[in-house]
Amino acid sequence: MVTSLSINPQRLQADFNDLAAIGATAAGGVNRPALSPAHLAARAWFAAQVQQAGLELQIDGAGNHSAMLCCANPSAPTLLLGSHLDSVPDGGRFDGALGVVAALEVLRTIQEAGLHLPVHLEAIDFTDEEGTLVGFIGSGTLTGTLTAHDLQNPRGGRQALLAGLARAGLSEDGLFTARRDPASLAGYLELHIEQGPRLYEAGVAIGVVSGIVGIASYRLAFSGRANHAGTTPMAARRDAGLGAAGFILAARALVMEAFPGCVANVGMLRLDPGAFNIIPGRAELALECRAADANTLERLQARLLESAAQEAARYGLALEVTPVGRDAPAPMSQPVQQAILSAAADLGLTTQSMPSGAGHDAQNLAMVCPTGMIFIPSVGGISHSPQETSRWEDCLNGANVLLGAALRLALG
Amino acid sequence: MVTSLSINPQRLQADFNDLAAIGATAAGGVNRPALSPAHLAARAWFAAQVQQAGLELQIDGAGNHSAMLCCANPSAPTLLLGSHLDSVPDGGRFDGALGVVAALEVLRTIQEAGLHLPVHLEAIDFTDEEGTLVGFIGSGTLTGTLTAHDLQNPRGGRQALLAGLARAGLSEDGLFTARRDPASLAGYLELHIEQGPRLYEAGVAIGVVSGIVGIASYRLAFSGRANHAGTTPMAARRDAGLGAAGFILAARALVMEAFPGCVANVGMLRLDPGAFNIIPGRAELALECRAADANTLERLQARLLESAAQEAARYGLALEVTPVGRDAPAPMSQPVQQAILSAAADLGLTTQSMPSGAGHDAQNLAMVCPTGMIFIPSVGGISHSPQETSRWEDCLNGANVLLGAALRLALG
Repeated sequence: MVTSLSINPQRLQADFNDLAAIGATAAGGVNRPALSPAHLAARAWFAAQVQQAGLELQIDGAGNHSAMLCCANPSAPTLLLGSHLDSVPDGGRFDGALGVVAALEVLRTIQEAGLHLPVHLEAIDFTDEEGTLVGFIGSGTLTGTLTAHDLQNPRGGRQALLAGLARAGLSEDGLFTARRDPASLAGYLELHIEQGPRLYEAGVAIGVVSGIVGIASYRLAFSGRANHAGTTPMAARRDAGLGAAGFILAARALVMEAFPGCVANVGMLRLDPGAFNIIPGRAELALECRAADANTLERLQARLLESAAQEAARYGLALEVTPVGRDAPAPMSQPVQQAILSAAADLGLTTQSMPSGAGHDAQNLAMVCPTGMIFIPSVGGISHSPQETSRWEDCLNGANVLLGAALRLALG
Repeated sequence: MVTSLSINPQRLQADFNDLAAIGATAAGGVNRPALSPAHLAARAWFAAQVQQAGLELQIDGAGNHSAMLCCANPSAPTLLLGSHLDSVPDGGRFDGALGVVAALEVLRTIQEAGLHLPVHLEAIDFTDEEGTLVGFIGSGTLTGTLTAHDLQNPRGGRQALLAGLARAGLSEDGLFTARRDPASLAGYLELHIEQGPRLYEAGVAIGVVSGIVGIASYRLAFSGRANHAGTTPMAARRDAGLGAAGFILAARALVMEAFPGCVANVGMLRLDPGAFNIIPGRAELALECRAADANTLERLQARLLESAAQEAARYGLALEVTPVGRDAPAPMSQPVQQAILSAAADLGLTTQSMPSGAGHDAQNLAMVCPTGMIFIPSVGGISHSPQETSRWEDCLNGANVLLGAALRLALG
């Protein structure tokens, strides 16, 4: 019965295109860091769509924006569908946005069909999924996994966080009012692009996510002595840049040789004081590493920090290590994976079980309710880039699998 | 006769302290990048001192500030004494400032003594010696070695240059009106701290500079592909940061193994787009290298650029090379070195002949008139740092040698 329903492809595409125009960059992507003016404009657009569809708009203390399709029983649990409208700096159009417009479209489709479900349906846009501010502000406060301590030395710096909150009309204390009683949550489903090459290369339509890798993030600061770059002999230098450079290469070698399937990244680096003719006295870098299970993540980060200490010692530098965040690996719910598989099978779509190398709000939701993720292929595996793209037919398949899986979970 | 004169040590120290308070940093240095508000404040202080001393104040189209002690014959040539009041970002109190206050003090001493010299004496503060904007704007325009082309892609960026000029009330075209007829210049003498450890370690009072090393500066940009740091396998990455890191280490090894006595520095580095979870698609760095003679400089820069190309190839990256500046090695005048030696000998001071590893305005002046430099010891050789310092007795010795050498050159 329920499988005869399908989403409205024209309406989904119109929504997707509207959204891609908000914060659009010349390179063809979008630039909507969390709580930036462009991100807030995307949220205003979402709010207008929700109201235009005759759904109820709900905005919580963390700024999470939701469309509600409520059932007759007010004490029924809520099935959440969603993703995020923020992007990395100069990111792509699909990451997050697809999951939000698809969730909204699922609610409209069910509403139009006049279906009465025994759960509330909620299409949610989570705050700060990409972590340009803190990381998972929206899902972390909703699930209670984010603490006030996490706001003190956030990834994007304290100033950027306070400025973003002020821009969005949010307060630090107010964020924590977004917390929900786990008993009120029937589950969480998220449609997302894979952000890697596997489905695309294998020619598979739907990825059923088995779990989300854990992530550990650090700031490392090497410090030596700033000095004149013309008069200080090479051998007498304590050049902080050498420690950073040595670590970048050593980290790569370590992961490739000893941690197959894991990854590490140095995505930011700053040399101080920063002039052509001054030997860097300080080098600060941003390190992130990921592993599929908790033990491996523990070993990986320990070995990376050891390697940083070795490079510091090699060049006569001091090393400061500041942990910035840690997300534990999160397995997805078996019944939710089953609902996704069954929905895909009914549509005749090929599937593949796979871990997610990227972090998602689903990892927080997995702590408190049955959670699952649906991946669709990313062309060439390009992600977090303006060149990120997915074939439209794959997007539609993903939205219909989201609809089918949501109905299965709602109807039990 | 002339050697009986000596500068007023209290007045010199009061001037030095006044100046050290302008743009002073908590770390004990000064932050007076060229044409910054702090630098302009230092120049206003200098102008006030000149007028208070009853000397003539002269400001040219490049913003160079001068005190003039004119001789009776208006067509007499001018003997320049000077240095600079700008600093590197977060620099020290002695670099440049000492030479300017000493030059001013020499003029005041000669004026008070009622000496009539057959040359005009000029104490000059040159614009942008440290190159936070372009590099040697003041001495480059005065000598005609700077061209309009050099202003198009300057070291500090075009925007910073235009903002600085506007702040100082200068115009781009106006800069070139600072040019002087070489026939009008009797010579140039500069007192400066060594900025290296040699005099201090050898326990020698005065360095007589034999020549100034040549400098070549480049911007290098490695570009690969920005991508998601969680979902892109290590082996599939085109991480621009790897090229930059590989180059930093390779450049050091190259200079240490194959170019003894030469130096290279990577003082700035930026990874784009710059986030924890994005593989850097672009890495831009600032490279500078120095050698004492033109042939070695040529070979050194060629080998460094070769090495950058190899690192780019190793990691599947493209490389853009942008030359930013080139200063030819500049030998100092023999008669001027002789005048410095003789002045030091009369004061019973030990001397050492040495090249300058740092660039100075003197390298431009050397192209058009007899030029020399006097170095005094830097404690521990620390330079371009708030920790830079020199013993006050060494500063006084340097100022008296400047006075003695100036009188010898003026009297022929």
